Amino acid sequence: MMNRRVIVKERPQGIPLAEHFELDSAPLPALAEGQILIRNHYLSVDPAMRGWLADAQSYGARIEIGDVMRAFAVGEVIDSRNHAFAPGDRVMGLFGWQEHAVVDPGSVLLRISDHDFPMSLSLGVLGLNGVTAYFGLMDVCAPKAGETVVVSTAAGAVGSCVGQMARILGCRVVGIAGGPEKRRLCIDEFGYDEVLDYKHEADLEAAIARACPNGVDVYFDNTAGPISDAVIRHISVGARIAVCGTASISSWDPWPSGPRYERQLLVKRATVRGFIALDYVDRYPEGVAQLGRWIKEGRLHYREEILEGIEQAPAAISRLYSGENQGKLLIRLPASKG
Amino acid sequence: MMNRRVIVKERPQGIPLAEHFELDSAPLPALAEGQILIRNHYLSVDPAMRGWLADAQSYGARIEIGDVMRAFAVGEVIDSRNHAFAPGDRVMGLFGWQEHAVVDPGSVLLRISDHDFPMSLSLGVLGLNGVTAYFGLMDVCAPKAGETVVVSTAAGAVGSCVGQMARILGCRVVGIAGGPEKRRLCIDEFGYDEVLDYKHEADLEAAIARACPNGVDVYFDNTAGPISDAVIRHISVGARIAVCGTASISSWDPWPSGPRYERQLLVKRATVRGFIALDYVDRYPEGVAQLGRWIKEGRLHYREEILEGIEQAPAAISRLYSGENQGKLLIRLPASKG
Repeated sequence: MMNRRVIVKERPQGIPLAEHFELDSAPLPALAEGQILIRNHYLSVDPAMRGWLADAQSYGARIEIGDVMRAFAVGEVIDSRNHAFAPGDRVMGLFGWQEHAVVDPGSVLLRISDHDFPMSLSLGVLGLNGVTAYFGLMDVCAPKAGETVVVSTAAGAVGSCVGQMARILGCRVVGIAGGPEKRRLCIDEFGYDEVLDYKHEADLEAAIARACPNGVDVYFDNTAGPISDAVIRHISVGARIAVCGTASISSWDPWPSGPRYERQLLVKRATVRGFIALDYVDRYPEGVAQLGRWIKEGRLHYREEILEGIEQAPAAISRLYSGENQGKLLIRLPASKG
Repeated sequence: MMNRRVIVKERPQGIPLAEHFELDSAPLPALAEGQILIRNHYLSVDPAMRGWLADAQSYGARIEIGDVMRAFAVGEVIDSRNHAFAPGDRVMGLFGWQEHAVVDPGSVLLRISDHDFPMSLSLGVLGLNGVTAYFGLMDVCAPKAGETVVVSTAAGAVGSCVGQMARILGCRVVGIAGGPEKRRLCIDEFGYDEVLDYKHEADLEAAIARACPNGVDVYFDNTAGPISDAVIRHISVGARIAVCGTASISSWDPWPSGPRYERQLLVKRATVRGFIALDYVDRYPEGVAQLGRWIKEGRLHYREEILEGIEQAPAAISRLYSGENQGKLLIRLPASKG
């Protein structure tokens, strides 16, 4: 069986563009003992891909030129030489930007037991985005009812989930997003108490001070850079900051400069902690189950943006940085190609 | 009774110097119900004083022009209108740079129950320096045997205590200190595994990499600035950084710039936490008791530098920043003046 795949052609400097990839077709290898064959239904497009492709040190092994692009995907087992997996099982994991994947069971991050939801959700609100939001907020930030929580990229796949969860926990939730459309989405769909449009605020720092009169108790940071600088000036005593992403910084080689905030951390006895959701993989079922309950109760909303066909994948990453996309960005693979 | 005191004459820009203070003499107020009268035996000189005096936001209320200089001191109760205190009790607290203090009991931070030690230790290794090191290391950093711990201002009153405790816990301990004398003190007296002299290392970052081949698991930061920047580039996964002081930065108004390290925190799932020892006041007796045991066992060494007479106080703060002093800096008040 021939398998269509997206190959890394050239290492990007900065944001990965279509020209850094190429589509090819290659015969699928035979299954070795213990392996499974998956037909991918949806491929994920994630900000983490830039880091995976960069020369600079990142988490996860670096991707080499000529490799299939590393990606999360969700699909169905169609053949198995592993007694733990049977055809028809739904799984999410690091299956790559390709139509089919022959993988070892270690590549599977989540087995999907609840078939009430569209499979695509296992790449978003019931997948990495959801568990990133869940463990980052619950474990790293541990917000208490009545506290003020600020979320950057408030309309994004992770941010919108964080904001809604903080509301469910009884916090005052202030989102930071770019542009009037995202601002409206945050208010109408995700129920933020206040949303600051960083592209149109003349003085973001003053706007944060107004929106957070008691200071910022929790900051869930998806951007780093000037947005974070403005938030950190308004943290309260005992504040907790989760560093989840650095979307505003286009290159970390060399490390860019910014205001030092050690003194602020000291005076405010504040904590900054970097985390990645892959460290919580053993606890994913707990997070996914709780997120699923909130969705069924109508308390947790999500947005998806779905592109059709593997041909769309190479140009998709840059959409995350252009501010164009709203909601979790996915590639659907038509069943006829399976 | 007349009381000699050091008054704040002018708000310093940067490091406080003798010219910012003046010595005066004023009658002691009568004791109100609930108050106690203390004869100070030793006055403390601390890096925190710069922050207390600065215009910029700090912890603790700002000191105003004309106030007695805020300071930790240790002394003896000589009169009491509070049933919890009796003449002869030894106490440490915020009693100010003055010979006598009339205070409310809330100013007392520690009651000294063990009279086996010189009273001066209650301002150093058995006082704020000791409990800062103890809770900062044990609570904020939680090092495990076999981990690598890096300490900046390694020969200082807090740093030397941190380094020795980390050795007692079974860690590999690397100190950073300025100048050959401090380096020698760290090795001979405090038992560091390795000590880097940041004033003479051509490439501090490379030296840290060599001294910490498995990366830095714990960094106890007393300096901020370029020393911290170099350490943070070599943290290991799961590293914990305690921000205890910012001695290398002479002004925080405006916040100076430095390399952003959010990405490093993310990739290394590291934690940076600011703390101040005053938040642990309820647990001081626990810390002081353990530190006292280690001193009696000969496992915890300390240095003191004692200046004679209250006249020395105004010029003393700047000694902390000139690199001149070794060990806890104190002012002794002669008994004849009591």
